[in-house]
Amino acid sequence: MMKANNKNISPLLTLIGAGPGDPDLITVKGVKALSKAKVVLYDALVHLDLLNYVPETSIKILVGKRAGSLSYTQDEINKLIVKYAKKYGRVVRLKGGDPFIFGRGKEEIDYATKFGIKNEVIPGLTSSTSLPALQGISLTTRGVNESFWVVTGTTQSGLLSSDISLAARSTATVVVLMGRNKLLEIISIYKSLGRENLPIALIQNGSLPNEKIALGTMKTIEEEVCRKGVGTPAIIVIGEVVNQHPDYLFKTIEQKLLQDYSKN
Amino acid sequence: MMKANNKNISPLLTLIGAGPGDPDLITVKGVKALSKAKVVLYDALVHLDLLNYVPETSIKILVGKRAGSLSYTQDEINKLIVKYAKKYGRVVRLKGGDPFIFGRGKEEIDYATKFGIKNEVIPGLTSSTSLPALQGISLTTRGVNESFWVVTGTTQSGLLSSDISLAARSTATVVVLMGRNKLLEIISIYKSLGRENLPIALIQNGSLPNEKIALGTMKTIEEEVCRKGVGTPAIIVIGEVVNQHPDYLFKTIEQKLLQDYSKN
Repeated sequence: MMKANNKNISPLLTLIGAGPGDPDLITVKGVKALSKAKVVLYDALVHLDLLNYVPETSIKILVGKRAGSLSYTQDEINKLIVKYAKKYGRVVRLKGGDPFIFGRGKEEIDYATKFGIKNEVIPGLTSSTSLPALQGISLTTRGVNESFWVVTGTTQSGLLSSDISLAARSTATVVVLMGRNKLLEIISIYKSLGRENLPIALIQNGSLPNEKIALGTMKTIEEEVCRKGVGTPAIIVIGEVVNQHPDYLFKTIEQKLLQDYSKN
Repeated sequence: MMKANNKNISPLLTLIGAGPGDPDLITVKGVKALSKAKVVLYDALVHLDLLNYVPETSIKILVGKRAGSLSYTQDEINKLIVKYAKKYGRVVRLKGGDPFIFGRGKEEIDYATKFGIKNEVIPGLTSSTSLPALQGISLTTRGVNESFWVVTGTTQSGLLSSDISLAARSTATVVVLMGRNKLLEIISIYKSLGRENLPIALIQNGSLPNEKIALGTMKTIEEEVCRKGVGTPAIIVIGEVVNQHPDYLFKTIEQKLLQDYSKN
């Protein structure tokens, strides 16, 4: 009986990008796949409302790190995917943002493929493009710039990516993910290139009710980030387009006045 | 009576990114906004199935260019937005991909704002990140690269963006949008830097049933694009990560054999 049942199972790994935070920023395709999942392995940054799309009888496991709680290693997650796909069929890996943008989704697919498990990818909104947009900042703007560059602040070795020094020399809007703890280092790179008046923004918990944003220039952003209490996870947006934010002009005038005041 | 009615109208412009093609790749938030729209102004690259979410009584106008038919200028679109928002309230601008990634969405918002019309942005999946993902190509991969760079192939002046020469010197995965007609120019930039073995892919009509893909290196891609008949609109993906495509290895061996054969 058990054997006959197993024969009918078609193991499938579906990687879904949940988007930047707001549960309504998942795709329709993502919702449809969630509603057919037998098992969902979800990351800590995924909004819990998304689990409402999953059948009640399905298995839901938090595999990501949440403050204080233990998490699964990447190797353990890989093994869970294979185990559950073989046992139950449709396994969904639900990841924040997009699974292929600094998401390690490829590693999970490669592992599962070794065990003959088919896969599909349902892309999600990456925070790098969607969070600036939600704040009224267009990463590309005709007549201002012709490209944008997305860099990780934290590489495999834990260091700041050396690509950031190159990016700082280009005209591209630069978005740094996972770079909050490297902010001072990033600022000093831009300052050393004489770009201390370049606009910069930090966005924490983007698209969620507890969203925080700090706006300024390379000169003023450090103080502004402290004042607003912007922590992790946050994205950093660097470039002239940041001045499109509705509060930017007001903010920079306020910061100028504060600096002048503190000098006197 | 008419006056009282107009008083109740709250003009609102909602910019929605429809995603790369497949109508299921729009966000849930986008669907909800479409279902409340009084007027939808949509681009030619938007899938017509998305109009099924719009109430039957609402106005739907194609404002983008479709082969052979006349299109509205950007100025005419701006004026339509203001006119309809004042008359009917909720106006949706439905654009392919993401409205803030080479989408000119910002210009429409700026124009409407001048007339006191509020706005909101609902980001969409940009083809630059989502189409490679759907083909199994992860734009960033641990141990391979630490960034990706998205550049337009066609600037305001009609020329290839000079950012591409810079990007070609970086380790970033480079994605060129609207660059199909500049392919030879792009190849020659990479070849001049000695990167003739770098993997490259072109994807046309990504995420749709008529999707086409060409895979190769800087040396072989031109012939492969011809053989596959890859036209516009297409995106170009350049970088080592392109070899993650399931067909890549097979393709490059086949191309090598063909080249050797034609030499003999």
